[in-house]
Amino acid sequence: MDSVENIRVGTLPPDSPYMKPFRLYYVQNGKEKNWDLIRAHDSVAIIVFNKTRNVLIAVKQFRPAVYYGLVAEEYEKTGKVDLQKFPPKDAITMELCAGIIDKDLPTNEIAREELIEECGYDVPVERIEEVMQFRSGVGTTGSLQTLYYCEVTDSDKVEGSGGGIGDEIIEVVDIPLDEAREIIKQGTKHTSPPGFLFGILWFLTNKASKL
Amino acid sequence: MDSVENIRVGTLPPDSPYMKPFRLYYVQNGKEKNWDLIRAHDSVAIIVFNKTRNVLIAVKQFRPAVYYGLVAEEYEKTGKVDLQKFPPKDAITMELCAGIIDKDLPTNEIAREELIEECGYDVPVERIEEVMQFRSGVGTTGSLQTLYYCEVTDSDKVEGSGGGIGDEIIEVVDIPLDEAREIIKQGTKHTSPPGFLFGILWFLTNKASKL
Repeated sequence: MDSVENIRVGTLPPDSPYMKPFRLYYVQNGKEKNWDLIRAHDSVAIIVFNKTRNVLIAVKQFRPAVYYGLVAEEYEKTGKVDLQKFPPKDAITMELCAGIIDKDLPTNEIAREELIEECGYDVPVERIEEVMQFRSGVGTTGSLQTLYYCEVTDSDKVEGSGGGIGDEIIEVVDIPLDEAREIIKQGTKHTSPPGFLFGILWFLTNKASKL
Repeated sequence: MDSVENIRVGTLPPDSPYMKPFRLYYVQNGKEKNWDLIRAHDSVAIIVFNKTRNVLIAVKQFRPAVYYGLVAEEYEKTGKVDLQKFPPKDAITMELCAGIIDKDLPTNEIAREELIEECGYDVPVERIEEVMQFRSGVGTTGSLQTLYYCEVTDSDKVEGSGGGIGDEIIEVVDIPLDEAREIIKQGTKHTSPPGFLFGILWFLTNKASKL
């Protein structure tokens, strides 16, 4: 488990490359309206199934936005973040392997790179099957996510790879199918996004019975 | 179909009540890090099944963030929004009945109110079953969504209700189960969030076979 400490809140620098908020104005059915939103990159996510060990592969990481979601009410009252009362480990999410599209590459090539960087499996793009596209953050970013499915084996594993690159701190985890069925029943203690839950249930519905 | 026109982009007013961006600083494994995020309300969503007509009930609405997601690349190049090339109807999403928690009420009461306001069905909270909780926008808001399931009949319909309140412009739609199965196979032309897809698939897996 990562150590996370010394959490502080500051203003958004006007030149933040990650968060570009603005207001969109429009006229709907003759009435002037507006909506505040942020520009975000489109992204890919991959449902990964390891055939050698019959497990789904997911990633766990500390998510600052989820942590703030946990502490926001208390922080806004007291101006303090109590690490004992709100342990940062409660903001470690379980998610699909995923990444933003910030390079001029075909979307499935981006998916292939994320699979190497985050999970440590190197497979040719031909083995990465498109499932569907959807919109994430319909109220805030409206960005497009392309969901893929990929079956891997232990022999696709690249020594020393996986776990993220640069500053990323990502733990790769195996999910046996019994555990996947439990997750769909109960959620993952509130720490997974709906895209992960959909991906797992899509796999159980469309792939697990044929394996 | 709504008419949407005269779309313009402006800066975010510093006092926007809807979009409060900031930067969270923290130390992870001894290393100083930060993340830009926005504070958002927690929310509820409801999978609604109408037993009288054997249809799921969903809502459609024009989503400015999704529209900007469609036109962003072109707008950033040309400074213009071409309504012919990018018809606003392509940003009408299909979603679960949902709403933010902005009142001091139990979460299932909020769900009950949204079901009246958006879809026009009035049911007692005892008939609104909690499915699970998850985190939406793990990279941006980290807000908690509580997902419910509710069976309604045509006799729960309230005359003159549904379609949103105040400025909201929401269309209530029926989804026959055959169409729901198609949506799960193909998506909804990229205009649904993953929470909708998960909700529909959860219903087909856990409820549809028992009806």
